[in-house]
Amino acid sequence: MISVGIIGGTGYTGKHLLEYCNNHPYVKEIAVYAKSSAGDKLLNIFPELCGIIPDQTVSSVDNLSYQHDLYFISLPHGEALKYVPDLYKKNKKIIDLGGDYRLNDVTVYEKHYKLTHNSPELLKIAKYGLTEFNVTDKNTDLVANPGCYPTSALLPLKPFIQKFSEEIISVSINSYSGTSGSGKTPKPEMLMSEMYGNVAAYNVNSHRHKPEIEQELLKDGLMAPMAFTTHLLPVARGIYTTSTIHLKKELDETDIKTQFNSVYKDKCFVRMREVPPKLTWVTYTNFCDINLSLSGKTLVITSALDNLVKGASGQAVQNMNQMFGWNDCLGILNSKK
Amino acid sequence: MISVGIIGGTGYTGKHLLEYCNNHPYVKEIAVYAKSSAGDKLLNIFPELCGIIPDQTVSSVDNLSYQHDLYFISLPHGEALKYVPDLYKKNKKIIDLGGDYRLNDVTVYEKHYKLTHNSPELLKIAKYGLTEFNVTDKNTDLVANPGCYPTSALLPLKPFIQKFSEEIISVSINSYSGTSGSGKTPKPEMLMSEMYGNVAAYNVNSHRHKPEIEQELLKDGLMAPMAFTTHLLPVARGIYTTSTIHLKKELDETDIKTQFNSVYKDKCFVRMREVPPKLTWVTYTNFCDINLSLSGKTLVITSALDNLVKGASGQAVQNMNQMFGWNDCLGILNSKK
Amino acid sequence: MISVGIIGGTGYTGKHLLEYCNNHPYVKEIAVYAKSSAGDKLLNIFPELCGIIPDQTVSSVDNLSYQHDLYFISLPHGEALKYVPDLYKKNKKIIDLGGDYRLNDVTVYEKHYKLTHNSPELLKIAKYGLTEFNVTDKNTDLVANPGCYPTSALLPLKPFIQKFSEEIISVSINSYSGTSGSGKTPKPEMLMSEMYGNVAAYNVNSHRHKPEIEQELLKDGLMAPMAFTTHLLPVARGIYTTSTIHLKKELDETDIKTQFNSVYKDKCFVRMREVPPKLTWVTYTNFCDINLSLSGKTLVITSALDNLVKGASGQAVQNMNQMFGWNDCLGILNSKK
Amino acid sequence: MISVGIIGGTGYTGKHLLEYCNNHPYVKEIAVYAKSSAGDKLLNIFPELCGIIPDQTVSSVDNLSYQHDLYFISLPHGEALKYVPDLYKKNKKIIDLGGDYRLNDVTVYEKHYKLTHNSPELLKIAKYGLTEFNVTDKNTDLVANPGCYPTSALLPLKPFIQKFSEEIISVSINSYSGTSGSGKTPKPEMLMSEMYGNVAAYNVNSHRHKPEIEQELLKDGLMAPMAFTTHLLPVARGIYTTSTIHLKKELDETDIKTQFNSVYKDKCFVRMREVPPKLTWVTYTNFCDINLSLSGKTLVITSALDNLVKGASGQAVQNMNQMFGWNDCLGILNSKK
Repeated sequence: MISVGIIGGTGYTGKHLLEYCNNHPYVKEIAVYAKSSAGDKLLNIFPELCGIIPDQTVSSVDNLSYQHDLYFISLPHGEALKYVPDLYKKNKKIIDLGGDYRLNDVTVYEKHYKLTHNSPELLKIAKYGLTEFNVTDKNTDLVANPGCYPTSALLPLKPFIQKFSEEIISVSINSYSGTSGSGKTPKPEMLMSEMYGNVAAYNVNSHRHKPEIEQELLKDGLMAPMAFTTHLLPVARGIYTTSTIHLKKELDETDIKTQFNSVYKDKCFVRMREVPPKLTWVTYTNFCDINLSLSGKTLVITSALDNLVKGASGQAVQNMNQMFGWNDCLGILNSKK
Repeated sequence: MISVGIIGGTGYTGKHLLEYCNNHPYVKEIAVYAKSSAGDKLLNIFPELCGIIPDQTVSSVDNLSYQHDLYFISLPHGEALKYVPDLYKKNKKIIDLGGDYRLNDVTVYEKHYKLTHNSPELLKIAKYGLTEFNVTDKNTDLVANPGCYPTSALLPLKPFIQKFSEEIISVSINSYSGTSGSGKTPKPEMLMSEMYGNVAAYNVNSHRHKPEIEQELLKDGLMAPMAFTTHLLPVARGIYTTSTIHLKKELDETDIKTQFNSVYKDKCFVRMREVPPKLTWVTYTNFCDINLSLSGKTLVITSALDNLVKGASGQAVQNMNQMFGWNDCLGILNSKK
Repeated sequence: MISVGIIGGTGYTGKHLLEYCNNHPYVKEIAVYAKSSAGDKLLNIFPELCGIIPDQTVSSVDNLSYQHDLYFISLPHGEALKYVPDLYKKNKKIIDLGGDYRLNDVTVYEKHYKLTHNSPELLKIAKYGLTEFNVTDKNTDLVANPGCYPTSALLPLKPFIQKFSEEIISVSINSYSGTSGSGKTPKPEMLMSEMYGNVAAYNVNSHRHKPEIEQELLKDGLMAPMAFTTHLLPVARGIYTTSTIHLKKELDETDIKTQFNSVYKDKCFVRMREVPPKLTWVTYTNFCDINLSLSGKTLVITSALDNLVKGASGQAVQNMNQMFGWNDCLGILNSKK
Repeated sequence: MISVGIIGGTGYTGKHLLEYCNNHPYVKEIAVYAKSSAGDKLLNIFPELCGIIPDQTVSSVDNLSYQHDLYFISLPHGEALKYVPDLYKKNKKIIDLGGDYRLNDVTVYEKHYKLTHNSPELLKIAKYGLTEFNVTDKNTDLVANPGCYPTSALLPLKPFIQKFSEEIISVSINSYSGTSGSGKTPKPEMLMSEMYGNVAAYNVNSHRHKPEIEQELLKDGLMAPMAFTTHLLPVARGIYTTSTIHLKKELDETDIKTQFNSVYKDKCFVRMREVPPKLTWVTYTNFCDINLSLSGKTLVITSALDNLVKGASGQAVQNMNQMFGWNDCLGILNSKK
């Protein structure tokens, strides 16, 4: 049984962390820390959780207690830098849901995030916690929880690139995300009145998640050029990613499927599908659904996940489970399967 | 002043044809022909048009009158074959909004549409009416109005391929469409209850619009491999298309923009944009908005249009305007610009 | 530990019954019976449940087994009549989610449902299972699970009418429901293309749920005239009900709140709110949230619930819990509160 | 031909005023005045109007020119007070789309708007411009354009109350509005992420539009108690209003319909319907559709309109047409009917 602190627990991802930790058999205590909401009651912030989680007062992050075993950090990028070095020195386990410890190369970080990093030495120590590739375990102290888009792109691409990298001419990744990815802070272009019936590409050729995807695919041997384009969907939740891979020669479909099945056969949260997934199959769950469609020298891989769950809080709890040696599903999936 | 017959005018595209023709200064008469709705009042089928268009009774297509100058055909594929040869023989002008006369090669048609074509000789005669490329004029008798997806892909791609075809490694087209593209016939997967908050790829590597796009891009000199993937959006209207082009070398952005501007400078319905278009900028209009984003050897072109207007009925009325030598905008745009 | 049969388990309510029963600690076996889907795999019908429930083959309702302890019936009205009398004779416990056993008076049933009832004697025996009013217990064999609209209207109205009936001039109930209430069978007016951005009243002054509401409020002493109007919302799930009560004199707000609090103080699925509830507070849950607003001689009560959960399958599992003497929350709520 | 100034023309209603005035045959000049957007290009603010209206620079309202014949004021309440008295003194025609001149009684205004009124003498002069009741004409200088909710409630109620007031026990008005009613200023609860799939009542028993509705219905002789409840719909546009009227005795349906038909027979923007209207019949139009359903002593009237058009800018242009003696439809409806 552990005690958990959630720093910045009053946004969309914080809410899900609360629910999963509350639902978790081995979490005995949860404290929530925030800045502007300090002193507020949790159930005033999340009235929908009334009757589901116990009420408590949000603590001020300025009086952060070091009594917890594990800290989730769910803050805008740059903010985690204020807490991680200290927590790390105090031998706490840390899962950062933001982007501050995902990139191994500090110059890439500083270029794309337009910030100075205060603890580049931890970039070497932090594990990039893409849970299906089992990088974290009991010895892991600091996890950089992957971005929502990178999770939705890496899960469908890594198995293929690990085995067939040499056959690839080009990779084009197209992602569409619901608006909750942009958080709770009101922006005019995120109003219902603006987004209803609307779609738009944004940050074309300049999204911060592109270097993150590149970094991880380069580790797998990617040599071909890769493009990544993000769009807003007129829904609240979910990411749908279509990866188009042009191939040098025709491959055998069975070989590809065998590779994916061998990578994911024991992974409870990745479901290989015979048809392209539907987004509603995965929203409100920690699943990532993947389909392969090969025709001649074109491979199209579609994948779907919930940006707030598998793309954030659900995967973070999976990382917690791995850091303590527990079953991946605890807190996130109730199943008799 | 002309008289117009709309065959199959009781669906979504038929409704818009009615509105535009009613709004057109040179259309003096409109008759609507249908099968199952014959005998019904138009304003019972389209109660929203009450007070906008005059009421009339839908005629039976079995008693098709040959008195009209121009016939729009708005039927499921295969159905136009029943009417076009006859109308053509009677020297009528014809605009077919379906797919039966778009493909020049009858074997390609029969493979993808799984139908036998009864008038392959007309495939040579039919003009593929992508209006911004001025193919139709007063001598045109039969127009194959382009598909909604092809229009949304060809307008952003043709200017580039016409000039830079040799620089292209690969083209990956990703399109997302509202559900009205699938028509008014109820299908379980198109229910509000199924599509709300949902997204899904469909017909991956097998969509009928792919050979149509290929045919037109090959004419422009495309040599690189091309992929095309279609998805359903959880909205009623609009298509958003993102084309990712991997290049052999870095190109000059100004050269590309100059090329697009020279192609579209006098085209009132294509708007070149400095930022990626938003879908709501174009829904309920005949505009196609296009943005270019070049970074290194990656070119991303985003485009947006309304599948029922620029992707169907609006472009069909543009074709009518061109066939009679009228201004492109008549009936479709009220503007003092 | 019991064995459960779900008759008609392939629709929206069937899916939720499956999930809740699978999640229930005392349900050891679930069988699904259907007609046209007999022989299909459950996970083909509900691919989203892959990894959550075990797969199995749907049995034919023509070979209904009598080995189960409890039968949920989730069929269009009229269809339950084929199974209930037999199951009742065989001493099985039955929860009918349809409308066939809700109305006590067979002539009212036959008038509104336009059907002949084959077992009117069971109308006296069936318990109207509005779970917060504790009508079912271990001795109950046949439960008529309340309609979705009636649940959303009765929970906010019964406490008030039980105590203040004499003060009422008139009651006007306005309900808005998501489209899933109309089921999975495709109807043209339920297409995404039709319902997107749309709202419409329907069955005005003639909805079948009106006599059901009336029957239950008359038992509580309602004497004033009551109107009930239903509308479709452009969303998949949820019902929002606004009840406007004109009063003969000004009442004391504290008295009214005290009455509601005393009725609902131990009910885990009704949450009294200080502000009007939001629909998303309750969707995907078994909660019904209620707010009272009194001003002069006008009382406005707003309430929200999920039509498929508290308005159908969730309440049905609550009824099962009551019929076996278990805690109301089992299978439906995971909470450490 | 007139010259028009739009003060505050950069919001949702301003955009529609621009479009309609641009489309109007007798408006030769349009100037837009604003505060924070002064100096911006109109087509940067409304990129979707590119190719539809000519571009121009937004003028500063601090340098308001008095050269125009008519001024539309489209500002938050309280702001119009700064301009109206001056414009009125200079003998300009004024149409205020806000709430500052709608209430005849200054104490009612000050109570509900929590502001001090600086020109109460103009409250007697301002005409409440509900256009179907022909209050404005060539002699009108100052029009208070009705609120969106009041328009949606008064059009269906006034004809009934004018004739049958004595038969009414109570009136309960329920309105649901799209989010554009709350304007372009970002508020957290109006985010797509919050409103998607959501519904909520708000300002229950305290909405500012209630005294406005009351004022107008009292003029028609309303004696019965009236309640008015507003809700947010998860769509961008449109208001759906359901008015439930409990009657003292059964009335003759034909009498009621005759009354409505006689009031609206020559009004091009009110459409009496045989079935409850659908919201999409009226969105993007200036129509208000109305249906009556009488059953025993219950009358339910449903009505639908677009809050930004008939509920704001469309009706404002109708008022302009009436103030200059032009046809009601000019600028707002293109019809050959």
